[in-house]
Amino acid sequence: MTERLYLYDTTLRDGQQTQGVQFSTEEKRAIATALDALGVDYIEGGWPGANPTDSAFFDDAPKTRACLTAFGMTKRTGISAQNDDVLAGVLNAGTQAVCLVGKTHDFHVTTALGITLAENAENIAKSVAHLVAQGREALFDAEHFFDGYRANPDYALQTIRAAYDAGARWIVLCDTNGGTLPAEVGRITSEVIEAGIPGDYLGIHTHNDTENAVACTLAAVDAGARQVQGTLNGLGERCGNANLTALIPILLLKEPYASRYVTGVSLDALEGLTRTSRMLDEILNRVPMKQAAFVGSSAFAHKAGLHASAILKDPTTYEHIDPAVVGNVRIIPMSNQAGQSNLRRRLASAGLEVASGDPALARILEEVKARESEGYSYDTAQASFELLARAALGRMPDLFEVKRYRVTVERRKNKYDKMVSLSEAVVVVKVDGEKRLSVSESMDEDGSDRGPVNALSKALVKDLGQYSSTLDDMRLVDFKVRITQGGTEAVTRVIIDSEDGQGQRWSTVGVSANIVDASFEALLDAIRWKLIRDTSAGKTA
Amino acid sequence: MTERLYLYDTTLRDGQQTQGVQFSTEEKRAIATALDALGVDYIEGGWPGANPTDSAFFDDAPKTRACLTAFGMTKRTGISAQNDDVLAGVLNAGTQAVCLVGKTHDFHVTTALGITLAENAENIAKSVAHLVAQGREALFDAEHFFDGYRANPDYALQTIRAAYDAGARWIVLCDTNGGTLPAEVGRITSEVIEAGIPGDYLGIHTHNDTENAVACTLAAVDAGARQVQGTLNGLGERCGNANLTALIPILLLKEPYASRYVTGVSLDALEGLTRTSRMLDEILNRVPMKQAAFVGSSAFAHKAGLHASAILKDPTTYEHIDPAVVGNVRIIPMSNQAGQSNLRRRLASAGLEVASGDPALARILEEVKARESEGYSYDTAQASFELLARAALGRMPDLFEVKRYRVTVERRKNKYDKMVSLSEAVVVVKVDGEKRLSVSESMDEDGSDRGPVNALSKALVKDLGQYSSTLDDMRLVDFKVRITQGGTEAVTRVIIDSEDGQGQRWSTVGVSANIVDASFEALLDAIRWKLIRDTSAGKTA
Repeated sequence: MTERLYLYDTTLRDGQQTQGVQFSTEEKRAIATALDALGVDYIEGGWPGANPTDSAFFDDAPKTRACLTAFGMTKRTGISAQNDDVLAGVLNAGTQAVCLVGKTHDFHVTTALGITLAENAENIAKSVAHLVAQGREALFDAEHFFDGYRANPDYALQTIRAAYDAGARWIVLCDTNGGTLPAEVGRITSEVIEAGIPGDYLGIHTHNDTENAVACTLAAVDAGARQVQGTLNGLGERCGNANLTALIPILLLKEPYASRYVTGVSLDALEGLTRTSRMLDEILNRVPMKQAAFVGSSAFAHKAGLHASAILKDPTTYEHIDPAVVGNVRIIPMSNQAGQSNLRRRLASAGLEVASGDPALARILEEVKARESEGYSYDTAQASFELLARAALGRMPDLFEVKRYRVTVERRKNKYDKMVSLSEAVVVVKVDGEKRLSVSESMDEDGSDRGPVNALSKALVKDLGQYSSTLDDMRLVDFKVRITQGGTEAVTRVIIDSEDGQGQRWSTVGVSANIVDASFEALLDAIRWKLIRDTSAGKTA
Repeated sequence: MTERLYLYDTTLRDGQQTQGVQFSTEEKRAIATALDALGVDYIEGGWPGANPTDSAFFDDAPKTRACLTAFGMTKRTGISAQNDDVLAGVLNAGTQAVCLVGKTHDFHVTTALGITLAENAENIAKSVAHLVAQGREALFDAEHFFDGYRANPDYALQTIRAAYDAGARWIVLCDTNGGTLPAEVGRITSEVIEAGIPGDYLGIHTHNDTENAVACTLAAVDAGARQVQGTLNGLGERCGNANLTALIPILLLKEPYASRYVTGVSLDALEGLTRTSRMLDEILNRVPMKQAAFVGSSAFAHKAGLHASAILKDPTTYEHIDPAVVGNVRIIPMSNQAGQSNLRRRLASAGLEVASGDPALARILEEVKARESEGYSYDTAQASFELLARAALGRMPDLFEVKRYRVTVERRKNKYDKMVSLSEAVVVVKVDGEKRLSVSESMDEDGSDRGPVNALSKALVKDLGQYSSTLDDMRLVDFKVRITQGGTEAVTRVIIDSEDGQGQRWSTVGVSANIVDASFEALLDAIRWKLIRDTSAGKTA
């Protein structure tokens, strides 16, 4: 007999409280779509009315199988739920489920809110009842519940009972300050159930301030809670929320959870976990955490010599799960045996068939390894990887040669005594035996400077002879820059995403201590890839 | 009645198994000294004889109050402990304590070692007895103990009993593959104690493969184990070891541990925890993890507006401990979610006292909001925030004025027909009424190009008159770039982290469609902040 566990994702709300994180509406849409593909049950999209981004997200939210949830707070004292404009703003988002946070710790009621305990309990009851009357699924986020229960268990229970009696579908026990340890989370959750709130009405929301958020969540599930809240990659206020990227594989793969419970995440979807985690880092331009449980690039890297040799005999000797089930890969330094078959698959997907055992495979792996140690990364820059492989296979056509370039960035006062900047680029190429000089400046239609990479990009495509027309519909859609380690020096890695009129989208990488030069290299790769794809040059090589 | 808990640090041994980490002997000495100042009981220094760095470290180890421990493995089959050269190498390090790892999982004995179960048990007993006969304190690392116990409890118990009976001071239960969850670690540790190995002879060594290493350690302590193993910042093979940087404050500050146990770490030493954690990252040239429990720079950062305003009334509303006790600091980021009271607090910490109700406060908040909508972000760029506030308050000193600059990036063939790049920057400033022109190029000692931002930075500080000497010890330590939305256009946001010889570290931000210009703006802010901090200019304004 398995029981259903419900997964509630708050990446878009509590995750946005991460220092340095500010999602755009478009990014919120992309993340919601990825969460839905993973199979979470609820997606908390933000607080409609509290800021323009959240409101815009709900106005045009993606269609999801998961239940989209709006977040807000219980009504204020002295106003009816019907007349509370903040609450109305939340309801206006029109979501099926609404989660309202309210106080359960007596100290906060009197200190932070400055109202009586009875008023607070009534605010909770009335707010939840209002949601239910509007036909919504009501969730109550019991803020500071564990601290509140320790201080005044009767009052803490009174607040959640108010929500439960008013018809809340879920009472979410929150360890808002993140200081409660797993054993106590388990004990208090059990006592709440003994006090009459059924476990299948209880959720758990923890924070990682003692590095125990995942363990606290498991302790609450062990005690009987049936909704698990968390965020992708453990984003969230301060040290973050419980990390769903760790919790989901635990619940699906590890005992006693795997046989006892079922969630909305399938084993098929689980294989997308590593990719989803990396995508979020990509959006946030964060360096993925190598040591992250399950999805980190080091999670299945076996550095100790004794471990690595045993792994080759039997991977279960030093692995608690098969990395493939979460979409991750095993790394055994000093052994590229594992790599060759993956490599052939990746080449085939780019239309490059290479026979098994071809010595070029080892050459390509070496080259990738050497370049990665210089700071390159081919995880996302698939187009640059294809060009590298073509070169190693002797299948790289001669397209054009860049002889030299020069970019100037200048900032000075204009004739109106206003500081303005301008970039100018000169590129000299040789195409079909002929030398061509092009010059461009970086100017918008409105006369503002778009910078040196823009100027370079325009000069580069301006006159490439027979190839120019193919590049007409190509444009740069994203540009990511990261400082990384190349050998012993810090270098700049630039990843460029390009797009064309046919809807093709491809990524290229450039690395240099010089950011303009790194950008130029990625631009060159982007152009070469497109020319190989779309002209006869690629076929004849 | 408090009981003693012993802390065993393995940063220098298991921590060295982190992907990308390779300590030098000198770094090992520095880390051992820092661990000793913190007050751990054991410092595992490495495996003498296994590699030259570890041998050199033991040859010239720093004098520590902590018990320096050499690591190795139990003797091999068919050789006596006296004649095993690997074991002899370990003993030759001459440490008071020696920790030997051995197999406890029947599958590993037969698969990885290919010997009989009885032979393995005898190897353990004979090796431990040999250490004891030599007058050493013997520790036995029971590798794969939890997996082994699940598979064959009788045999797993037989191996650790062999070590215990032979005189081992500590039997360390290792969850080598990191897959065991806290409840099971607790259950199995209890059963080991019931089977006759006293808890005050048991240690616990966990890995973070499910993000539960800290919780598993606490579960073993709850069950009766009295030695805790881990690493600083959770370094270690794959996902890392149990993080002592989290465990130490939990054991000292959180209940039930704080009243039940005593360790060798004093509350005074605990105040050095954040510094020690950052020092390790510095040595490893890793960016400190912002969200790290207790010591991360975000661990006490309150971004949510409701949290921030409550914190100002009483910090315990949203903090589980006082950040000062672990040497960390509270941060109320200046994002547009925060209000006037946070702002005053933030300004005061920068030495800018502003009266409550001062209309400048509203002006500053507006300015922050307007700039954030252009793509600026002041969450981390506190130094730029201070400059913005000074300007709004009319307290920004006249330091110097940039009249214009020009940067050229050129890539061409050199006389050896090799493509090389070079950047050159000209900056024109006015200082003390005098115009000064400076030119610099971006060249390393080895002649390689470090790019346009490097050239600009050098030209800018080259001649700032009276200010030049103050900037001598300033250096750029990190440089982050992301493409973001500024109004309707994509713009580049650059965040620069700077550092000086006094150990000050500060962050500034620049935004522009032109990446060089955005970098220049962040550089300018970095220089201005330092000049205001360190010259009389800041006092007189």
